[in-house]
Amino acid sequence: MANLRVGIVGLGRLGMRHAESVGLSIRGADLVAACSINPDEIARARSILPDTEFYDDYGNMIHRARLDAVIIVSSSGLHSTHIALAMEHGIHVFSEKPLGITISECHDAERAVMSHPELVFMVGFMRRFDPTYSDAKHKIDSGAIGTPFLVRAYGLDPDSLIEGALRFAPTSGGIFLDMMIHDIDLARWFLGREPLMVHAIGGTFKYPAFRESGDVDNATALMQFEDDRMAIFYTGRTAPHGYHIETEIVGTEGHIRIDGVPRKNRAVIYSKAGATEECVTGFPERFDEAFKLELQEFIDCIRENRKPGITVHDGTRATVIGYAATESLRERRPVYIEP
Amino acid sequence: MANLRVGIVGLGRLGMRHAESVGLSIRGADLVAACSINPDEIARARSILPDTEFYDDYGNMIHRARLDAVIIVSSSGLHSTHIALAMEHGIHVFSEKPLGITISECHDAERAVMSHPELVFMVGFMRRFDPTYSDAKHKIDSGAIGTPFLVRAYGLDPDSLIEGALRFAPTSGGIFLDMMIHDIDLARWFLGREPLMVHAIGGTFKYPAFRESGDVDNATALMQFEDDRMAIFYTGRTAPHGYHIETEIVGTEGHIRIDGVPRKNRAVIYSKAGATEECVTGFPERFDEAFKLELQEFIDCIRENRKPGITVHDGTRATVIGYAATESLRERRPVYIEP
Amino acid sequence: MANLRVGIVGLGRLGMRHAESVGLSIRGADLVAACSINPDEIARARSILPDTEFYDDYGNMIHRARLDAVIIVSSSGLHSTHIALAMEHGIHVFSEKPLGITISECHDAERAVMSHPELVFMVGFMRRFDPTYSDAKHKIDSGAIGTPFLVRAYGLDPDSLIEGALRFAPTSGGIFLDMMIHDIDLARWFLGREPLMVHAIGGTFKYPAFRESGDVDNATALMQFEDDRMAIFYTGRTAPHGYHIETEIVGTEGHIRIDGVPRKNRAVIYSKAGATEECVTGFPERFDEAFKLELQEFIDCIRENRKPGITVHDGTRATVIGYAATESLRERRPVYIEP
Amino acid sequence: MANLRVGIVGLGRLGMRHAESVGLSIRGADLVAACSINPDEIARARSILPDTEFYDDYGNMIHRARLDAVIIVSSSGLHSTHIALAMEHGIHVFSEKPLGITISECHDAERAVMSHPELVFMVGFMRRFDPTYSDAKHKIDSGAIGTPFLVRAYGLDPDSLIEGALRFAPTSGGIFLDMMIHDIDLARWFLGREPLMVHAIGGTFKYPAFRESGDVDNATALMQFEDDRMAIFYTGRTAPHGYHIETEIVGTEGHIRIDGVPRKNRAVIYSKAGATEECVTGFPERFDEAFKLELQEFIDCIRENRKPGITVHDGTRATVIGYAATESLRERRPVYIEP
Repeated sequence: MANLRVGIVGLGRLGMRHAESVGLSIRGADLVAACSINPDEIARARSILPDTEFYDDYGNMIHRARLDAVIIVSSSGLHSTHIALAMEHGIHVFSEKPLGITISECHDAERAVMSHPELVFMVGFMRRFDPTYSDAKHKIDSGAIGTPFLVRAYGLDPDSLIEGALRFAPTSGGIFLDMMIHDIDLARWFLGREPLMVHAIGGTFKYPAFRESGDVDNATALMQFEDDRMAIFYTGRTAPHGYHIETEIVGTEGHIRIDGVPRKNRAVIYSKAGATEECVTGFPERFDEAFKLELQEFIDCIRENRKPGITVHDGTRATVIGYAATESLRERRPVYIEP
Repeated sequence: MANLRVGIVGLGRLGMRHAESVGLSIRGADLVAACSINPDEIARARSILPDTEFYDDYGNMIHRARLDAVIIVSSSGLHSTHIALAMEHGIHVFSEKPLGITISECHDAERAVMSHPELVFMVGFMRRFDPTYSDAKHKIDSGAIGTPFLVRAYGLDPDSLIEGALRFAPTSGGIFLDMMIHDIDLARWFLGREPLMVHAIGGTFKYPAFRESGDVDNATALMQFEDDRMAIFYTGRTAPHGYHIETEIVGTEGHIRIDGVPRKNRAVIYSKAGATEECVTGFPERFDEAFKLELQEFIDCIRENRKPGITVHDGTRATVIGYAATESLRERRPVYIEP
Repeated sequence: MANLRVGIVGLGRLGMRHAESVGLSIRGADLVAACSINPDEIARARSILPDTEFYDDYGNMIHRARLDAVIIVSSSGLHSTHIALAMEHGIHVFSEKPLGITISECHDAERAVMSHPELVFMVGFMRRFDPTYSDAKHKIDSGAIGTPFLVRAYGLDPDSLIEGALRFAPTSGGIFLDMMIHDIDLARWFLGREPLMVHAIGGTFKYPAFRESGDVDNATALMQFEDDRMAIFYTGRTAPHGYHIETEIVGTEGHIRIDGVPRKNRAVIYSKAGATEECVTGFPERFDEAFKLELQEFIDCIRENRKPGITVHDGTRATVIGYAATESLRERRPVYIEP
Repeated sequence: MANLRVGIVGLGRLGMRHAESVGLSIRGADLVAACSINPDEIARARSILPDTEFYDDYGNMIHRARLDAVIIVSSSGLHSTHIALAMEHGIHVFSEKPLGITISECHDAERAVMSHPELVFMVGFMRRFDPTYSDAKHKIDSGAIGTPFLVRAYGLDPDSLIEGALRFAPTSGGIFLDMMIHDIDLARWFLGREPLMVHAIGGTFKYPAFRESGDVDNATALMQFEDDRMAIFYTGRTAPHGYHIETEIVGTEGHIRIDGVPRKNRAVIYSKAGATEECVTGFPERFDEAFKLELQEFIDCIRENRKPGITVHDGTRATVIGYAATESLRERRPVYIEP
C-alpha cells in the first residue's frame, strides 16, 4: 500500500511539530502539502521540508493537492469550516482542539463528521496517546484499581511562558477552554461517565491583566458525574517550576497518579538546596512522543480502515463542558451541563 | 518551677496516647489524675501509669485532684461541658476536636474560654505541630512561596480500618466533621483567610452502608475563601494503601507539597512489582511526634505564661465550616458560610 | 544534499532496531542495503523494510551497494574485520561495541580507523546519547558539581532475561566485557581520567551454571583513576525488578544521580503494597531514544564533515579495562591497567 | 521494679543527647549521676538536669553513685578502661563506639565484657535501632529479598561541618575508623557473614589539609565476605547536600534501599529550580529516634534480664575491619582481615 498523501494547514509552533512528524517519522504517510497565510512560516517550513508543496489558501490546497488526509492546526475559529470542506472532498481529517470557538461551531463540525461515516476523523487530545496515560487507561479498563470514582487533574502552564498567555488572553476563550479542556477530556475518559454539574472558581493572584479579558490566572473546579463520580481540577498559568500536568485516578482498589513531579529527565541533583529534580518546561517537551503517537494512530486508522477510539463527540463534549465551567466562574454558581 | 499537675479524661486509644505522653515524655508536667467511665480502660491504664490516681467521675477529678491543667479526650458530646467545668475551677484546658457536636455546643465552649482569658486553652489540631507542617507554615510566613492562594488537601483513612468507621458511622457526624475538619483547619491556617462558600459532593462507592446514616465513603469539596483564595478537598475512607494525609499549598512563587507519598519509612523495596515504598497505616503512626509536640506546647504555654497560636476560635470555625460542607452534600448546592 | 546511502550488517534484535531507525526516523539517510547470514532474519526484515536490498554476504554488500556508511551489528568476533573492510572501501562506519573479542582485534580495529582519518567512525556506547546522560555531562563540563571525583555505576539486567544470559554465557566474554563495559565507558567519560587499577570480585548467588564458563551472576569492582579519582561498580544479571542502569557522579560541589529508580513511566500506583513505580524491562525500552540519537549523530557527523565526540580509542579502552576486570576476578587480585 | 540508677560519662554533644534521653524520655531509668572533666559542660548540663549529681572524676562516680548502669561517651581512648572499671563494680555498660583507639584496647574491652557474663553490655551502633534499618533487617531475616549477597553503603558527612572534621582530623583515627565503622557494622549485620578482604582507596579532593594527618576527604572500599558476598562503600566528608547515610541490601529476590534521598521531612518544594526535597543536616537529626531506641533497649535488657542482639564482639570486629581499611589505603593494596 502506498504512503498516504497528507496535507497540513497552520504552521505555527504546533503546526510545524505535526508537519515535521509526518514529514520525518510517521510511517505510512508523506507530507505532500502544507498551507499557511503567513509567508514567514512558509519560508521557514520550506527549508525543513523540501519535498512539500506550499499553499497560502486552504481551499486551493484541498482542491489541488490530491490529499488522502489533512491535519488542521489553523486558528480555532476556522476549525469547523476547515473540517467541513475537507470532508466534502472525501479527505480524512485530524483536527486540533477545540472544534470551534462557539458551541454552535462545534455542532457544525460534529454534523460534518457524522455525515461522513466513511472517513476517519480524530481530534487532538494527544494526552490519551502519552505512554503513561494510555497504560493507565489500560490498567483501569482491566480492573486494576476497581471502580474509578474520582479524577484529580492539574493543568499548569509555566510562569516563564506568561507573556504569551497574556498576549493571547483576549482571544483564548479563557482558562477553561484554553487549558482545562484537556483535563476535562481525561476525566470523561478515565471515569467513563458524563459530567452533570460543574462549579468553578478562580482569581488573578499574580497577573491582574487577565481580568481585562474576564479571565483569571488560576482556577479550580468541582465536577459531579453520573453515578456520583467526581473530579477536581486545578488549572493555572503561574507554575514556578514548569509545565505540570498531573492526573490522579482514584478507584475502590487503587490509585494511579501520573506526574506528581513532572520530571524533565531521570536525574536527581544533590546540592546545597537538597535533592532536586528538574521539571519539564512546556507541552512540546512533555508530550513530544504523544504528538507523534496520535498522528501515527490517525494514519494507521486510515490505512487499516478502522475508527479511532477518540471521536468528534469527545471534542464537542469537552468544549461544552469548558463553556459550562466558564459560565460557572463568571456567574459565581454551579452550572448544570446539558446532556 | 515544679512540674504541672495534669489530669486527663477519656482513656480510649487517643486518650491513652496522650496519657502516656504526659506520663513519660512531656517535660514540665506530671500525670497525676486520669478519669474514665470504663473500668477496663482504667485497669489497663493503671498498669502502665502506676503513679496516677484514677477517677470514674470527671467532676470528682476536677474537684479533688488539685489539677493545674486537664486534657479532654472524652466523647465529643461532652467536650463543651468538660471545658466549662475545668475553666470554672481555674484549670488550663487542652481539648480534642471537635469542641462540640452541635454549633451551639461549640459556642458554649468558646464562651467558656473567652471568659477565662487568664487560662491557657488549646484545641487538638495536632497536624499543625507535625515538623513538616510547621516548617511549611514557617516557610510560607517568611514569603518562600509568595502569596499562598490555593490549598489542596487529601484526608484518607485506610480501607483496612473500615470496620471501625462503619460501626462509628451513626454517631460520627459524617465524613466532613469526622475527618475533613482537620483539613479545613489546615486550609484556614495556610491561606490566612476565612472561607466564604463550600460546595461538597460525594458518594458511596465501596460501602453502601454509609448511606443509612446519611454519610458517604468518599467526598470532595470546593471552598472559596476571602480574596478569591481557594481550597479543594478529597476525603475518603477507602484508601487501599494506608493513611494518606496530603496537603499542598500553592503560592505565586512556589508550591509546597506534603506527603505526596505517605511513606511509612525511608526504604524503597525493589521487587518484581517494581520499586515500592510502604505507606503509613494510621494517624497514631503518622502523627506520633505531632501528638507529643502539641502537648509539650500546651504545657510550655502554661509554664511560660503565654498563649498558643491555635485558639478556641479555630476550633469553632472548623466545626462551623464542617457543618456547612455537610449541609452542602445533603442539599446538593453550595452553602455560604456565616462569618 | 542527498540522503546518505546506508547499509547494515546483522539483523538480530539490536540490528533490526538500528535498521528500523535508519529506515524510518533518522534524517538524512536511507537504508539501502542490509546483510544477514540468517535467512529468517532477512525474511522478517524484508517485510518491514520493502525498499531495502538484502545480502547474505558482507563482502558483497560492501562491494556492490555503493554505501556511504555502514552500521555493524554483526557478531562481536567479526567487528574488527568488518570495520577494516568498510573503511578500505571509503565507507563511514558505525560499529556496535566491543570492537573485538580480543584486545588484539580491538587494536586491529583501531589501526583501521586511525589510517582513515577522512572517515567518520563511531562506536555504539549509546548511553552517552541518552538525554539524561548527555545533560549530566553538559552540567558537569560547565562546572555544576565542581570537580567530579567519583562515579558509582550499576548495570543490572533483569532476572526475567536470565535464560538468554545463560545460553549466551559461554561466548559472552564474561560479565565485565558483556555488561560492565558500558559503565566503564561512562566512568571514563564523566571523570575525564584514565583508570590505573581495577579490583573486581563476584560470585554466583542464584545461577551456579555461570561458573561453568568461568563467569559469575553478580560482580562488583573498585577502580582507581588518575588523580586519585575513583569508581565503584555493581553489575548483575539477577535484578528482580527490571533493567537497572544507575549512574551517580559525585563532585566537590554536587552529585548527579541518574535512575535511582529505573522508572518505566510517569505513574505511581497506590495499592495495598504501598506506592509502586514500575521499572523498565530491558535496554531496548530504556535506551530507545539514545539508540536513535546516536545514529542521528553518526549521520549528522558525516553530513556536516565533523568528528563525533566518541572515538575508536574509547572503544578500545573500555575493552582493555573490561579485560583487566576479568583478570582481576579470576586471579583474585587487583590488576594494574596498561596506559 | 524501681527505676534503674544510671550514670553517664562525657557531656559533649552526643553525651548531652544521651543524658537528656535518660533524664527525660527513657522508661525505667533515672539519670542520677553525670561526669565530665569540663566545668562548662557540667554547668550547662546542671541547668537542664536539676535532679542529677555531677562528678568531675569517673572513678568517683563509679565508687559513690551506686549506679546500676553507666553510659560511656568519654573520649575514645578512655572507653576500654571506663568499661573495665564499671564492670568490675558490677555495673551494666553502654559504650559509644569505638571500643578503643587501638585493637589492643578493643581486646581489653572485649576481655572485660567476656569476664562479666552476668552484666549487660552494649556498643552504640545506633543505626541498627533506626526504625527503617530494623524493619529492613526483619524483612531480610524473614526471607523477603532471598539471599542477601551485596551491601552498598554511603556514609557522607555534610560539607557544612567540615571545620569540625578538620580540627578533629589528627585524632580521629582516619575516615574509616571515624566514619565507615558504622557502615562496616551494617554490612556484617545485613550479610550475616564476616569480611575476608578489604581494598580501600581515596583522596583529598576538596580539603588537602587532611593529608597532613594521613587522612583523605573521600574514600571508597571494596570488601569481600565469606561465601563470595560483597560490600562496596563510599565514605566522604564533603557532601554538599547534607548528612547522607544510604544503605542498599541486594538479595537474590529483591533489594532494599534506605535513604536514596536523605529527606529532612515529608515536603517537596516546587520552585524555579524544580522539585526539591531538603536533606537532613547531621546525625543528631537523622538518628534522633535511633539514639533513644538503643538506650531504651539497653535499659530493657537490664530490667528483663536478657542480652542485646549487638555484642562487644560486634564492636571489636568493626574496629578491626576499620583498621584493615586504613592499612589498605595507606599501603595501596588489598588487606586480608584476621578472622
